[in-house]
Amino acid sequence: MRISTLSIGDELICGQLTDTNAGTIASMLLAEGLRVQRHLTVGDNEPDIIGALNDLGRVSDAIIVTGGLGPTADDLTSRAAARATGRRLVIHEEARAHVRLMSSKLETLIVCPLSDKQSMIPTKSALIPNPNGTACGFHLMHTGCFMFFLPGVPSEMIVMLRDTVIPFILERVPHKRVIRTAALNLFGPCEAEVDELLLGIAMPEQGLTLGICVTYPWIKVTLRGEADNDDAATELLVPAVRTVRERLKEYCFSSGDISMDEAVAELFRERCLTLSLAESCSGGLLAKRITDISGSSRYFYEGVVTYSNDAKVRLLGVPAELLNSSGAVSSECASAMAKGVRMASGSDLGLAVTGIAGPDGGSEEKPVGTVYISLAASDGCWTKRFQFSGNRDEIRTLTAWTALDWLRRYLLKRE
Amino acid sequence: MRISTLSIGDELICGQLTDTNAGTIASMLLAEGLRVQRHLTVGDNEPDIIGALNDLGRVSDAIIVTGGLGPTADDLTSRAAARATGRRLVIHEEARAHVRLMSSKLETLIVCPLSDKQSMIPTKSALIPNPNGTACGFHLMHTGCFMFFLPGVPSEMIVMLRDTVIPFILERVPHKRVIRTAALNLFGPCEAEVDELLLGIAMPEQGLTLGICVTYPWIKVTLRGEADNDDAATELLVPAVRTVRERLKEYCFSSGDISMDEAVAELFRERCLTLSLAESCSGGLLAKRITDISGSSRYFYEGVVTYSNDAKVRLLGVPAELLNSSGAVSSECASAMAKGVRMASGSDLGLAVTGIAGPDGGSEEKPVGTVYISLAASDGCWTKRFQFSGNRDEIRTLTAWTALDWLRRYLLKRE
Repeated sequence: MRISTLSIGDELICGQLTDTNAGTIASMLLAEGLRVQRHLTVGDNEPDIIGALNDLGRVSDAIIVTGGLGPTADDLTSRAAARATGRRLVIHEEARAHVRLMSSKLETLIVCPLSDKQSMIPTKSALIPNPNGTACGFHLMHTGCFMFFLPGVPSEMIVMLRDTVIPFILERVPHKRVIRTAALNLFGPCEAEVDELLLGIAMPEQGLTLGICVTYPWIKVTLRGEADNDDAATELLVPAVRTVRERLKEYCFSSGDISMDEAVAELFRERCLTLSLAESCSGGLLAKRITDISGSSRYFYEGVVTYSNDAKVRLLGVPAELLNSSGAVSSECASAMAKGVRMASGSDLGLAVTGIAGPDGGSEEKPVGTVYISLAASDGCWTKRFQFSGNRDEIRTLTAWTALDWLRRYLLKRE
Repeated sequence: MRISTLSIGDELICGQLTDTNAGTIASMLLAEGLRVQRHLTVGDNEPDIIGALNDLGRVSDAIIVTGGLGPTADDLTSRAAARATGRRLVIHEEARAHVRLMSSKLETLIVCPLSDKQSMIPTKSALIPNPNGTACGFHLMHTGCFMFFLPGVPSEMIVMLRDTVIPFILERVPHKRVIRTAALNLFGPCEAEVDELLLGIAMPEQGLTLGICVTYPWIKVTLRGEADNDDAATELLVPAVRTVRERLKEYCFSSGDISMDEAVAELFRERCLTLSLAESCSGGLLAKRITDISGSSRYFYEGVVTYSNDAKVRLLGVPAELLNSSGAVSSECASAMAKGVRMASGSDLGLAVTGIAGPDGGSEEKPVGTVYISLAASDGCWTKRFQFSGNRDEIRTLTAWTALDWLRRYLLKRE
């Protein structure tokens, strides 16, 4: 079944608001083995809506339309739907009763004048109930294409899609395919390297596809197995996931929706180790990411953001002569910071970062993007120099990701 | 001029990733008086891309395409563009030189194997330079429609659109209306309050429109004056901006694209004052935002993230008995933290935050969202209790915004 979505709204086409409905619909359909082929957006403008319905109607078996069913003058979808399909717009008694009932229920701050506008739908259409709002949806069939019209408010749209549209479509799909997906998240390699590592795993003809999505600075690999039944889809997917894991090894920091920060937090909980941070160029970003996770107070003792040399000496015990001889951006200073914060706080691990995030402060020897990361633990202290590129924000982001990944790899090796 | 956008990517059509490029393009074009009419998304699938180019080509004078120019196997845009327009795909020497140059420049952690895929573009196309990445863009003319192909990475796409595509289109627009816009950024009031404060300012018939866009937790008010020439547009806009400023008073923290963080940084530079931070529930987020700004080392001395009571005592000199009697989340503790960090670091201002970000740790007396913010300076120490609502992330975000806004208001009053 060829399915398209159509989002209607001036605020969407002008870029004032980002459309999330199209993605929500695609995800919900995909979970049922249905794929969206095209997604179109047009403004609150009758000729554009009519044109969109006609064009999508030619290449689709079903169109799911969102937006433009509200009570105000710029809501034009019902009228455009009637014109596009050669129908009249008439008052639908059930819709009118619903609008009245919901208007009295939804009395909030915002009181809209009652109008019959939301009760008018094209002839030969069926209502789609909306338990969460005044706007009824409706659906109709035109030149072999099912057209579903839903309000643009996500909370209303989602329920109507789930309870009415998807069951309606599924009943009409002759041989429904089952789709099972799995996602793995990577940090370290570039897209081309991942592509090469995963060569030959996808078998599109057998229903096994693989997608690589770069969400700077990490990468999500999605595997999708499509088959006639659940068992066959799982049988396609499981060995493929295993192979991907084997090839990606330590690059893979989590699966599904688990973030790097959550993966690191989980390891801290499992290993029963504690952490303190000493940050210079990352300026609190690492502490922020560690404490983003609820419950982090159990393993995170403290962080210090030592921008000034005085703070490095006073809070971390970095020797002043070391700062004079090697400088604040040096391997020696990073080690001293990591050991210093570990010692002062009494935590198991001390992680330190010092570098030049730019745009100023670089030199020939230590250009912008030079970053030292140091990890001090009971079994040693390791320090490494990195050379990152990008603007200030990108360098800081890469620094935090690299430091967290380093923590993750260290924790993985510990019992 | 009828303009369409086309976003290409499986992750977009599947709903894994929300497309922001379409909105960015629409906003940037609108600032130049150009409107996007249709926005279409399709997956990484050659027939779908070809179909989309053909369909949009029929109803558009220009199409701006993003995505699918990368080095991997699922990047199909160049080939589909060649097929859709009846051209061959050939190696473009300038593109090849660019790919090689950029690949060597971008050497970071991530080293990608070189491939000629990104050097291949359709015949009779002109290159669009990409100063920020390996993928060159290109544009061509087919059946009366200009087609521009850009990479999907926003930072690359935006520069190419601004520097090449928009100037190219503007040269070909015969009677351009002039649009002048101004934006003011607010923190504090809710949308309905702003709406009421700004009543009667917009005059759509005269070409003066006003938009209120909520970008949690701040609000952007955009004024747009549209006229036949520059002078007339400016004449519409300037008095309206003045009126908006007068009505919004201290709610307005900046204009244009200046963030709260930059507004605060500017005030620190002007006032020649210095700052240190003591954070508990915000966990480094405040320090991160202060140090996001390049040059912050001139006024930012240090930050401490004191999650444990021990750290509050050791690093900030908060009396242990105070922690026992009033607790770590208290007005007394917040003041002691602010004074302590100011004293220890020798900075002019000490700002402290302590509270309960949740989801655990709340009590009847101090529910989740209870936050104390304290500011210590030479002329006094002020502490206030706030009650924020939302999840952990929202409470931390609101805490940081409120603390920064407090700093801003204090600095505004100082000479």
